[in-house]
Parts: sequence; structure tokens; C-alpha cells
Amino acid sequence: MAEYFPEVNKVKFEGRDSKNPLAFKFYDPDAVINGRKMKDHLRFAVAYWHTLKGTGGDMFGAGTWKRSWENAADPMQRAEDTLHAAFEFFTKLGVDYYCFHDRDIAPEGQKFSESCKNLDYIVKLAKKLQSDTGVKLLWGTANCFSNPRYAHGAGTNPDPKVFAYACAQIKHAMEATLELGGENYVFWGGREGYETLLNTNYALEQELFARFLQMAVDYKREIGFEGTLLIEPKPQEPTKHQYDFDSATVLGFLRQYGLLNEFKLNIEANHATLAGHTFQHELTVAAASGSLGSVDANTGDMLLGWDTDQFPTNIYDAVYAMMVIQQAGGFTTGGLNFDAKLRRGSVDDLDLFYGHIVAMDTFARGLIISEQIIKDGLLDEFVAKRYSGYNSGFGADIVAGKADFKAAEGFVLANEEPVPSSGRQEYLENLINSYI
Amino acid sequence: MAEYFPEVNKVKFEGRDSKNPLAFKFYDPDAVINGRKMKDHLRFAVAYWHTLKGTGGDMFGAGTWKRSWENAADPMQRAEDTLHAAFEFFTKLGVDYYCFHDRDIAPEGQKFSESCKNLDYIVKLAKKLQSDTGVKLLWGTANCFSNPRYAHGAGTNPDPKVFAYACAQIKHAMEATLELGGENYVFWGGREGYETLLNTNYALEQELFARFLQMAVDYKREIGFEGTLLIEPKPQEPTKHQYDFDSATVLGFLRQYGLLNEFKLNIEANHATLAGHTFQHELTVAAASGSLGSVDANTGDMLLGWDTDQFPTNIYDAVYAMMVIQQAGGFTTGGLNFDAKLRRGSVDDLDLFYGHIVAMDTFARGLIISEQIIKDGLLDEFVAKRYSGYNSGFGADIVAGKADFKAAEGFVLANEEPVPSSGRQEYLENLINSYI
Amino acid sequence: MAEYFPEVNKVKFEGRDSKNPLAFKFYDPDAVINGRKMKDHLRFAVAYWHTLKGTGGDMFGAGTWKRSWENAADPMQRAEDTLHAAFEFFTKLGVDYYCFHDRDIAPEGQKFSESCKNLDYIVKLAKKLQSDTGVKLLWGTANCFSNPRYAHGAGTNPDPKVFAYACAQIKHAMEATLELGGENYVFWGGREGYETLLNTNYALEQELFARFLQMAVDYKREIGFEGTLLIEPKPQEPTKHQYDFDSATVLGFLRQYGLLNEFKLNIEANHATLAGHTFQHELTVAAASGSLGSVDANTGDMLLGWDTDQFPTNIYDAVYAMMVIQQAGGFTTGGLNFDAKLRRGSVDDLDLFYGHIVAMDTFARGLIISEQIIKDGLLDEFVAKRYSGYNSGFGADIVAGKADFKAAEGFVLANEEPVPSSGRQEYLENLINSYI
Amino acid sequence: MAEYFPEVNKVKFEGRDSKNPLAFKFYDPDAVINGRKMKDHLRFAVAYWHTLKGTGGDMFGAGTWKRSWENAADPMQRAEDTLHAAFEFFTKLGVDYYCFHDRDIAPEGQKFSESCKNLDYIVKLAKKLQSDTGVKLLWGTANCFSNPRYAHGAGTNPDPKVFAYACAQIKHAMEATLELGGENYVFWGGREGYETLLNTNYALEQELFARFLQMAVDYKREIGFEGTLLIEPKPQEPTKHQYDFDSATVLGFLRQYGLLNEFKLNIEANHATLAGHTFQHELTVAAASGSLGSVDANTGDMLLGWDTDQFPTNIYDAVYAMMVIQQAGGFTTGGLNFDAKLRRGSVDDLDLFYGHIVAMDTFARGLIISEQIIKDGLLDEFVAKRYSGYNSGFGADIVAGKADFKAAEGFVLANEEPVPSSGRQEYLENLINSYI
Repeated sequence: MAEYFPEVNKVKFEGRDSKNPLAFKFYDPDAVINGRKMKDHLRFAVAYWHTLKGTGGDMFGAGTWKRSWENAADPMQRAEDTLHAAFEFFTKLGVDYYCFHDRDIAPEGQKFSESCKNLDYIVKLAKKLQSDTGVKLLWGTANCFSNPRYAHGAGTNPDPKVFAYACAQIKHAMEATLELGGENYVFWGGREGYETLLNTNYALEQELFARFLQMAVDYKREIGFEGTLLIEPKPQEPTKHQYDFDSATVLGFLRQYGLLNEFKLNIEANHATLAGHTFQHELTVAAASGSLGSVDANTGDMLLGWDTDQFPTNIYDAVYAMMVIQQAGGFTTGGLNFDAKLRRGSVDDLDLFYGHIVAMDTFARGLIISEQIIKDGLLDEFVAKRYSGYNSGFGADIVAGKADFKAAEGFVLANEEPVPSSGRQEYLENLINSYI
Repeated sequence: MAEYFPEVNKVKFEGRDSKNPLAFKFYDPDAVINGRKMKDHLRFAVAYWHTLKGTGGDMFGAGTWKRSWENAADPMQRAEDTLHAAFEFFTKLGVDYYCFHDRDIAPEGQKFSESCKNLDYIVKLAKKLQSDTGVKLLWGTANCFSNPRYAHGAGTNPDPKVFAYACAQIKHAMEATLELGGENYVFWGGREGYETLLNTNYALEQELFARFLQMAVDYKREIGFEGTLLIEPKPQEPTKHQYDFDSATVLGFLRQYGLLNEFKLNIEANHATLAGHTFQHELTVAAASGSLGSVDANTGDMLLGWDTDQFPTNIYDAVYAMMVIQQAGGFTTGGLNFDAKLRRGSVDDLDLFYGHIVAMDTFARGLIISEQIIKDGLLDEFVAKRYSGYNSGFGADIVAGKADFKAAEGFVLANEEPVPSSGRQEYLENLINSYI
Repeated sequence: MAEYFPEVNKVKFEGRDSKNPLAFKFYDPDAVINGRKMKDHLRFAVAYWHTLKGTGGDMFGAGTWKRSWENAADPMQRAEDTLHAAFEFFTKLGVDYYCFHDRDIAPEGQKFSESCKNLDYIVKLAKKLQSDTGVKLLWGTANCFSNPRYAHGAGTNPDPKVFAYACAQIKHAMEATLELGGENYVFWGGREGYETLLNTNYALEQELFARFLQMAVDYKREIGFEGTLLIEPKPQEPTKHQYDFDSATVLGFLRQYGLLNEFKLNIEANHATLAGHTFQHELTVAAASGSLGSVDANTGDMLLGWDTDQFPTNIYDAVYAMMVIQQAGGFTTGGLNFDAKLRRGSVDDLDLFYGHIVAMDTFARGLIISEQIIKDGLLDEFVAKRYSGYNSGFGADIVAGKADFKAAEGFVLANEEPVPSSGRQEYLENLINSYI
Repeated sequence: MAEYFPEVNKVKFEGRDSKNPLAFKFYDPDAVINGRKMKDHLRFAVAYWHTLKGTGGDMFGAGTWKRSWENAADPMQRAEDTLHAAFEFFTKLGVDYYCFHDRDIAPEGQKFSESCKNLDYIVKLAKKLQSDTGVKLLWGTANCFSNPRYAHGAGTNPDPKVFAYACAQIKHAMEATLELGGENYVFWGGREGYETLLNTNYALEQELFARFLQMAVDYKREIGFEGTLLIEPKPQEPTKHQYDFDSATVLGFLRQYGLLNEFKLNIEANHATLAGHTFQHELTVAAASGSLGSVDANTGDMLLGWDTDQFPTNIYDAVYAMMVIQQAGGFTTGGLNFDAKLRRGSVDDLDLFYGHIVAMDTFARGLIISEQIIKDGLLDEFVAKRYSGYNSGFGADIVAGKADFKAAEGFVLANEEPVPSSGRQEYLENLINSYI
């Protein structure tokens, strides 16, 4: 068997003072924090598309990455080689999970039936490699946005033939996910939206999208897939406006169509900021509805208006994210998928390791710090005290739904003018810094 | 009685070729378009706060506008003078409606009871002036964001005393609106949001906000106010993040708390773009839920990240907005309120007329052009044809909820690979230009 | 000879009321406005890359456009076929100019010498087709950003081998431009910038860039190329930060290195807005330094943070642009190049015509309207009056450089407190609307 | 003498593990780093306007901060009280510097002469307090943007009377700065720009601005002020477009008018990001021209489009900033001014201490970490190696200006195709994290 990363042995935890760039300084997979192993808190996953199939191409230039697993002339051979390289990478890096689109792991054929056959073949091999290595599938999905047929959308396409095609493709991708023991199945609607309202029947497309998701729910039941269905919000790009704009929009849509209990959210940091929200905000909104499913933990550039999908290296972002995730009870079927690609100029295979190592160490620090903050309780205490007026008296009546405008007026007339207390933002930011 | 705008007579329609800057070139109030008078389609309203009470101040400088109605030393006298100036302005400009916050028309007193007394006094005078002039109240609202007591929110304040205060204030503002025959009552939650999640109990604040709105609904019923309750989305500013971020967020919130039938939306163009949407998008989302209530028709600067509240002068924006409004059936209780302020350097009273005239003429053109586009039907025809596949066969099955993934797969296997049709965006943009 | 656009005859001017989507409603090439033919004012050019070589691909999906001139298996045959299709398109559309990158018109070979040979061969054919049709070359340029060798820049690459390669490539592209009678040669530094300052020697890269441009100037002289050298500003994308950020940055750089008289600017509307400026602003800045060379007249989407390169259809943008261009004396060697691509879903060859037609008609209206505004003189008069205080007295002393702080203080003490006059923005926006 | 902050004693350094929120954990003023005391590296300054005169007001609400030094009815008494409070604050906080605008420290009078008299009186008192406490003036400036007279600009006003007024005002502010031993004098042109190009003579305003600055230079010489003149770039707000958009724009302007040696830049972090740049970028651009004068170290919110002027609490920002500053040789006359205001809801005087403490500790960490990075040299080594090709051979010829296009072509033909090396962004981000 070819070895694709001969220059790298298994990446190990060497602790904070290590100078080895191919070691973890913070991520110690089996270290126990708050009764659970670090790896089980974090549930890291590698994204097959960027890490194995990415090319380094952008809108202004061709691919820059020369991968040894892409050398074979035959597409199916390349798919097999890639899969072997993938599992070598997962194993050497020491992640327990991966994620894929159907068309990443197996090439699209001339016809739909051939595409299915290709996928089935590769799934069989993947199953064996999973079994050999112990690496698991965090989630699978179907790529219903790259092929030109999806130019005007998949589940919201003006042409029912394309709608049907997307259904058929997802059917197979869902079966593949079930076969591989995937813990979730993800919907990212990259073309579910519009380029211009001039040619768009918005109301109909919303209806179609609901039908589409309902059909997926029905099929999930039919085949006994017990994983979680996830929707990943993104506001725009590739389309001008995508229907899954942000968490609040998706949750509202799910409520409208009675689908709230069927789907959770896969929150991506870069998509959050493109929608004008912090990553922490999107996680908080999802968690407040009990809908926080999984996370794409790449990051964006706050000064750039497109999805840069960078490896996350900012400790603050990781701390704030892990605080929300842990306070929501931690991951169940979800995990931290690095939907991240190397910068185009990071041209070596080695950079794939550097990218994942800094990301994993950053989130390991995020976990360690957030657990310390939660354990110390100073922040929670501050917040609890801030809202303590709602625990009794008229405040409690409000929460209980017993107050009305007349009672409120009576309360105001009977009391002193309220005086605002400090929100202490600067103090709290200092408190957070004291943990970093 | 003092005359506040002696240099202006009633603004008249003089037609397209008029060179008179104090005349309308397009807005001909009594001209009938599609069976309804222009003024009844457009239902223009003046915003009391910017037009009468604005100062021209900004974060970096003091007010620049010297208004003759602000000269009196006594606040109540100023309030009376302002009201007289307002009705003179409404009448000379020829608008049928105005909108106000409680604290615009009457000054806040030392105590809550004094504030109420001040408001009651001015409402009585306003009622008389409405009756004298025929000018009506499009909507009233309470300013629950300017006073320091609301620094941390009104209906989402961590302190129930402030929550109660807001309830009491809105109770009176709603009574005043009823007394003046207001056709709507508006909620704009300028401080309903957060500055930092570090000190915020997001889930509790959402609950509180729902209680708050439910209490308003209950009180509306109690006093027999039959106007429409409106929520005005805005993503941020003054707070870092506001809960009424955009239409989709507000509609999702209303669905979550069973309030969807109790509220409609007041869409503001500048708020739409701050949230990353076009004005047309926000109107479309509201209309698709039957929730398009009213419009704040000011505009923003697409390169600036704050609410510039400019008078709308862009014909495209007006055409696209009017297309959505008219196709949704036109306004019922709502209208076009100019929540717009002069540029700080537009220091003359005369500029108030110029600002409103260009705005009204722009929307009059928007109406004329959009009605022509709708009448010609070319655009509608294009869209209908684009989605015609859903009228029969498998497409109709999808819409009817009769299709499933297996049927879709069968359909795909039995048919040719779908080929995308052109979305014709460039052609359609040319079509729109041909009407301008 | 194959005909590539058999469904289209020559596009003609049919006037405002034409319903023919393949006709011009405003662009009447030989109509004379202010002593010059419309076509000579506007000097429209087609961009070879988007129009002939574009694929409809984006970062999330493959190409959607199937062009009949791309069918041949042999790259050089495809290049020839494309060139024939190009001149058929130029001729049927009725534009007088085109623009190209070296690698658009001829494919890159295995080695540099082969690339040069390919280019030379195609240039010979292009020369013949220019002569046959009368179509001219507005500008040529070298693509020094797509090939992986340029991943870290061309004239600012950390590796002098790449710097040298870019020089050699531009040498040939400049020779090709000379051979084809190109009126300008353009530098767009898509990779001249950085991804992260962590790995960047900013000061050295600035020096290198200056050397690079100086070498181009020297070579231009050496070969007797008398066209204009142009730099096209863009703030970012593909890189995180590009050195030619905007007009002011480029002009400052040229001044620093004594190159101001050697280069003019090629202003692109979409790049202007990505840099936080209006198109009109960038044109104004360039014009004020006598550096307005040429224009890329595509447009962007103000709500999207990447280069959408749409066909320009907004009449306001065209009016404001043409006002600056005409008041700066109109184009000399420059022109209006549509660096615009169809939306990915506009999949038909016919859409290429629709896109260019709406763009040309939009700028024709821009020309007609701006000439009318200039001729009427109301706007100019307003501005002249606004600054008239500088024509005499202390104002004139200031302009003449004769005033100092002490004199200013004396002037203030001797005069009344100044009172601001209205800037009349709303009035002026109404004035502009009255011309549309 | 009244004590304004009785609840606070002098803030002391207590080290990393202190739980005292009124102590420094990292800022140890007299600790020596790389041969210089921490306080002499950092040269912290308090901004008089936000800290002493801020009100907590915003565009949507009144001031929320009740300061005991603002109680006196007489404006001059308030000014004296404020000054005493200021020096008590400076001393208790332990900063060595402060900064002011003329109209912060002394109120504007009815007439220009009265304003000057007020200023002179307060300057005398400030001089005494400086002498008593050892606190020094980092810089002074004139507020030429708040008063309505400056609505259309100061040094770019269409009315020469206002231009003259600004000159006279700056004359006095410069004299006051000299009198107080100020080390710099700052120009922030908050209204030097435009609201709309429709009413603006851009070229003339640029000329006027150059005259204005030249007059300041002349007067500086005349009175023997030996401090540094600084310009502070900002792209917009309050105006739609400001002429001092960013560092590159200002440096280009200074070069155009021969003023480059007369001015340095005062870089503000929040202004950098509003212009689409990182703070580090703006510092780097300034440093590359030898023009890095001083820093306003407040921060903004990357998701908000206005100047939030928050206290800086992000360690990354501080590290990156200090790396540029230290590698440029550290501050000479400049320093780190906190042009920062508390969040509106941080209503207590105590929050003023919390805000400054977190900011000072953040920059102290920035200094400590950046000095360690510089000392270790790993980053510098990486960069030096990356560009080492320019040290010899053809690379050295390029730098020396000895290369031309023909030589470059010869070099290309004689060498192998260049292959890009990895830029190692992910590796370098991990390297930085290892220091935090």
C-alpha cells in the first residue's frame, strides 16, 4: 500500500512547551476534563472535500496543490487512492471522524445510475477502512450545488426535473450515510436561494423547499436512519441570497412548516459572520431552541466578504463557542468539523497537518478555558444576579404570564423611577482575558 | 396664529416639465391609477420626530437646524408650537398622514404621571388639529429607547422595574393612538437586544419579549383598539444586536410564541440593507406570510454601516418596492412613512419641503411604473412560465405533497438529464429599464 | 467559415419604443452629441475573457455555459475558433473595441517559449481579423495571476524567479499589444498584495513593485509603444489585501516612486465599491490628478462582498460616471470596457447579447443625460456659487497661498460668526431625477 | 479639594493571579523590558473627551453617565472641576499622559475671543496640575467638527469665513499645546470630506486642505513648537467620505503637496477597520514611510459599521500592533492614547477604571509577547529566508535597479519554471498562538 504522508508519523500531544510543529501543545485526546475525555468533548472531524479533494484554485487562478493521490488517470482509481490517503491522514492526525459529500468520495458518472454505482463501490471500501482504523463518519451529505443542473437550485429549482434529481441523489447519499454508520446527515443549500427576485417566485420556492425537506424526513424514517438531520445556514454565496440565511431564519422556516423537531442546525463560524452575526450568537440562537446539532469550525476574515474557510486559530472564538456548546450540554451526535481549506499559497501536504494541528489545539484551549470559566462560576453568577429581579414579586409575575399593562402601570406609580445598573462589559472582558 | 413656513404655499402638482422645485412633477394626489387615487395607493406620512423635532445633531456635532417652533422656553409651549407647525407643514405639503412617538409630541415630565398628563394635553390639541385639517394618524408609538432607564432594553430589560415602566408607557401611547384614530400602533425595539452576550441571558430575554408583546395584544383587545400592531425589524444600532433583526427573524419569533396573527411588519428600507437584504427582499418575505403591514420609506447609503435615514430618491428602489406592495394587494391600514431626516448640512426649513417632495415624487414614479409593469404582464408571464413545470405531472405531485424520494428516483431514471434554462437576469433588467 | 451566433443579426438602434430585445433603444452609434459621435464618446469594448472564455463556473460549481467555439480538442484550434467567434460577436453587437489578456487569446504552453509562440500565432490572426472588420484593440494585458507560479504575486513575489517570469511575460504581451495597435496596456495586480502580514516584507514588496513598473516603462520606451500604461485598482480578492487598493493609494504610490506621469488609472466600478467608495468617487479622484485613463464599466452587488462583475444596468451609476468622464474632457486613449460576466444561470449565447445590449443602452442614457445636465449648467452653477467666496478677498488670499494663521485670526475677530448655508442635497437629488 | 473617585485608591500591579479587578495583572510600569521601562515603551494616555466629558449618549438616546464633576451650574466651574477630576483619575490610574481638544477642557464662549479667554484660563490651571502630578500632555488638538459652523468642513469648507475660523481656532489650540509642553499636535478632519459629490468641488477642496496644513506648518515654526504634527486617518463618519480615508491616502496627499516631512500619522484601530484594513496593516503602511507617529488604541466591532470606540481587550490586536511599533523603533513623541468610551450601559465611575485597566493590561501583554517573539527571532528568520533570493544574483539586480525586461526574459529562458514555496500561514498562526 502506498504511503501518502511519509514525512509524518502520528501526531502526538507533547504539551505546551513543545517546539515541535507536528505535535499538539494542548490537545491531549484521552485527558479527562469534567468527566469526559477531551476527544469525546470535541469530536473533531476532517472535511473530505477541502482536505482531500481541494485544489487550491480560486476564481482568479488554477489549483496550486499537487496531491500524490490524484495522479491516476482513471477517476475511480483516483477515488480509491484518495480514500486511502484520507484514512492515512485521519489516523496520523488522530481524529475520530470525517465528513463527506457523495461526489467527493466517488466521481459523478455519465448517468445517474453510474454515479450511484460509483458511490456504492467507494462506500464499501470506506466501510472497510472505517472498520480497520476505527475512524467514524460524523456526517454525510449530497453535493446538490456544483453540477450545472443545479444552477437554479435543487429543492427550490423552477424545474421539477431538477427537484426530482436532487431527491434521487439525496436518497442515495442518505443510504450511503446509513451504511457507514454516519451520526448525522447534513443539508447545505448552496443554490437554494435566488440571484434576482425579478425571475423568482419566492413563495412557491419556500413551499417547494418545505416539501423537499419533508420528503427527506419521510425517507429517513422509511430506511430507519436514526442519525440527526442537520441544516447549515449560510446567507449568500454562491447565490445572491440563500433561504437558509442564518439560524433564526432557518428555525422560523422549520416552525412554519412543522419541521422543528425533525432538524437541528449545523452552525458554521464563517457563515455566521457573513450574515452579520458572531459565531457565538448563532450558536446561542440554536441552543436556545434546543437545535444546536453540530459545528463547522472554520473561520472567516472579518474584513472580507466571502467565505474564506480558514482553519480556526483564534482562541477567543474557540472559548466563546465552547462556552455555548458546553453549557448546552455538549455534543450528542454532532462534533467539530473543520470545513476549512489551506490558504492557496500553503502548497505542501505538510500544511494540511499544520492547519489541522493549530485548529485542534485552538479548540482544545477553548475547551480547557471554557470549562474553567464555567467551573469558577463568576460569569454565570454575574448574569444570574443581573436578572434576579425576575425571581420574585412583579418580575416573577411577568415570567409567569400573570402581569398585564394595568398592573404594570400600578407598579410604576407605586415605585421609584428605575435606575440602570452597569452592564460591566469592560469588567467582564477583563475577566475573560484573565483565563487566557 | 403664527405661520411657520411663510415662504411656502401649498405644494401643487405641476407635471413633469415644471422647473419649480416646490412643485410635484409626478405626484398628482387625485389622479386615478388602476381604480384608486394616487394618494390612496401611497398613503404618505410625515415622521414627527425627524421632521419636527430633529436637530441636525450627530455623534460628532451639535444640532444645526434652527426651528422657529422651538423658541419658547416652556417645554409644553414648545410642544404646542411644534404641533401647530406640524399641521401647517402637513397641510402645505399635502400629506394625509403623520406618525409620532409619545415623547416627540409631548415632553417627558419629572415623573411618569406628569409625562402622561403632558401627553394627554397634547393629544387633545392634536385631535382638534386633525379634525380641522383632515390629516390623520397613520401610527403612534412609544419611545422606549431614548431615556437612560432603557439603556439595557425595555421589554427585555434585566430589571423588571424597567419592563413594567415600558408597559405603562406603551399603555398610554396606545390609548393616545386610539384617541387619535391611529390606524396602526408600532413597536420598534431599539434597545431590545444586547451589547455583549457575556452579560446576557438570551433565552430569558426572548421569553420576556414574548410576554411583553402578549400583554400589548391583550391590552389592545381590552381597550378596543382595532388598528394593526406592527413590529419594525432592525438588525443593530443602537445595540450591537437587536432581536428584531430582519423580517424572517421577527416572523419566526412570532410563530414561536403564537403571535403571528397579532402583528404585521413595518419594513424600513435602511434597516433592510443594514441586515444584508434588499428593501424588496424584506417586503417580499413579509408579503409571503401575509404580514406586510406598513413601510418606512427612507433610504440608507449602501457604503455606510449606520442608519443614515435619507429621503428616498432612487427610482429603482421605489419601483421594486411598489411592485411588491401592489402585488400584495396594496396598503390596507399601512402607508409610506418617511422616517427620513435631512442631511445635517441641509439647514433651512425649505429643505424639509425639498426632502419630502423628492421622496413623494420618487414613490409616485415608483407607483406609475410598477402599475405599468404589472399591467403589461411581461414580467409575470416570464416567471409563470419559468415555474410551469409544477402545474402538471410529477411537478404537480410535488406541490400536492404526493411525491416521495422513491418516486423521484423512478422519475429520474425514466427521464433525460435535466438541462438548465437561462434565468435571463440581464434581459429582465433591460425590461425594467425600458419602463423608466 | 462557421457562424457562431446564427440566431442574431447585427444589433440595430430602433429607438426608445422598440420592443425588440435584440435592438438598442438608446445607443445610436453615429448620432452626434455635443459635436462627437456617440460611439466616439463611449468607445465600448468587449472583454475577451468573460465574454469568450468565461465558463459560468464559480467557487461552488462547474461551468454552465456550453460554447460552440470551445468544442475542438486541440487548444490552438480552440483559440482560433474562439477568435473567429469573438470577431463575429464584436461585429454583430457593433462595438469598436475589445480587450484581452495574453492567456485568453492563446493558451499557455508547456514552456515559456511555447507560450510565446502560441501568442505570436494568434496575434497574427487577430491582426488580420481587426483589419477585416475594423474592430480595434482598446488594451492588452498579461495574466500574471492565474498560473500557480504567481500564487504569491508577480512583481511582488518573494521569489525573484517569478518576478523575472512576470517581466518576460509582460514583455511579450506588450509587444503583442503594440503589434495589434492597442491604445493602452493595463496592469491589474490581482496577486500583488498579501494573504497575511506574518509572512510578508511589506516594505520590500513595495520597492519591488516600483522596480517592476519602472522596467515596464523602460521597455515601453524601448519598443516605441505610444499607448497609455494603465493601473487598475482593486482592494482585495483574490488576495486578502492588494497594494493597488484604490485610486488614492495607487496615485500615492506612483508619486512616491516618480511614476505619476507614466501611468493613468483604469477605474472599475465593482472594485470601487469593494474599496468602500462610489464609482463616481474613484473617477473623481483619478480625474483630479489628470489620471483618468479608462474604465471597466461592470457593476457589483452592494450587498455582496466579492467581485460579481455584473453587466451595468443602473442608470444613476451611468449618469454619474459619464458626468465625471465628460467634464474631465472625455476619453482619449481609454474607453468603456465591459469587464462583466453573465450570471451563472444565464446559460445561452443569446444572453451575451442581452448583457451587452442593456449595458450599452444604460451608458448611452448616461451619456445623453449627463450631457444635458452639463449643458443646462444648473448643477455647475450651484457648485460655483457655493465656493464663490474663494474668488475674492480673504478667500482668494487663501487659494493664492498668501494667508496665514495670524491673518485668519484677524479676519475672524473683524467679522461676524459664520453661518452655514444649506448644502441642498435633497434638492440636488431631485434635480438629477428630473433628467431621468 | 473634592475627591471624585473616593472608592478607588491608586491602581497597582498585583500580577497575573490577582483577583482584584482594580489591579493590573500585566502592566508593571517600572518593569524593564529590553532596556526600557514598560511605561516608557507604552506611553499610555487618557482621552479627555470620552473619559471626562463623555455622557453615554448615542443617536437614539440621552446620556446615561452622571458625573459628579459636571454638577456645577457655571460652565467654567464645571471645566475646573472636570480638570481636577481628570488629574485625580490620571494619578489613580497611573498613566503619564493625557490628550485633549480645546473645547473639551474649556467651554466655547459666545464669541471667539471669549472662547480663547476660557481656554487660556484653563490651560493655566492644567499647567499647574501637570506640574503638581508629573502627568504630561501627549497631544492637543482643536475640535473643528462639532460646532454647526463646521457642518460643511473646516479646512475644506466652501465658505472662506469658516476656513479662517478654523485657522484661528487651531492657532490658539497649538499655542495651548506648546504652553503645556505637548509632545504632538493632532489633526483629525472629521468634517473634511463630503456628503455628496453633487455639491462638491473635490479638486478645490483638496487644494484648500493643503493650504490649511501648510499654514499650520508655518505657524508651528513661527512659535517654535517642536512637537510632531500628526494626521489621523478615518474613512467616513461623520461625513459620507473623508479625505483622510486611510494611511495610504494621507501619505499620498502629503507627498502631492510636499508635506510628507512635516506630518506623521496617528493611527486609530477602529478607523483602520472601517476603512477595510487591519490595525496592523495601517501601522505597517505608516511605518514603511517612516511616518508612524502615535496610536489611538481603541477598538471597534468588526460586525458594526460605525465607530464604536471600545476599550481594546483583544490580545491578538495588541500583539500585532506592538510588533509593528517595536520593530519600527518604538514610540518617540507618540504613545498609546485610549480614544475609547465605555459602553453606554457601563454607567458607573468605576467602569472608567475597569475600561482603562483591561486596555492597559491588554497592551502590556501585547508588549511582553511581541518582545518575546522579536527576541526569539523565529518569525523574522522565516520572513528573511522567504525573500533571500533578492540578496544575490538576478534578485539583487532587480533590487539594485539593474535588471530590465530583456534580461528577465533571458533569465527565464535559462532557468527552470519556478515552483511556489509554501507561505506557511497556518504554521505561522500556530507559532503566534504558542506565545499567547
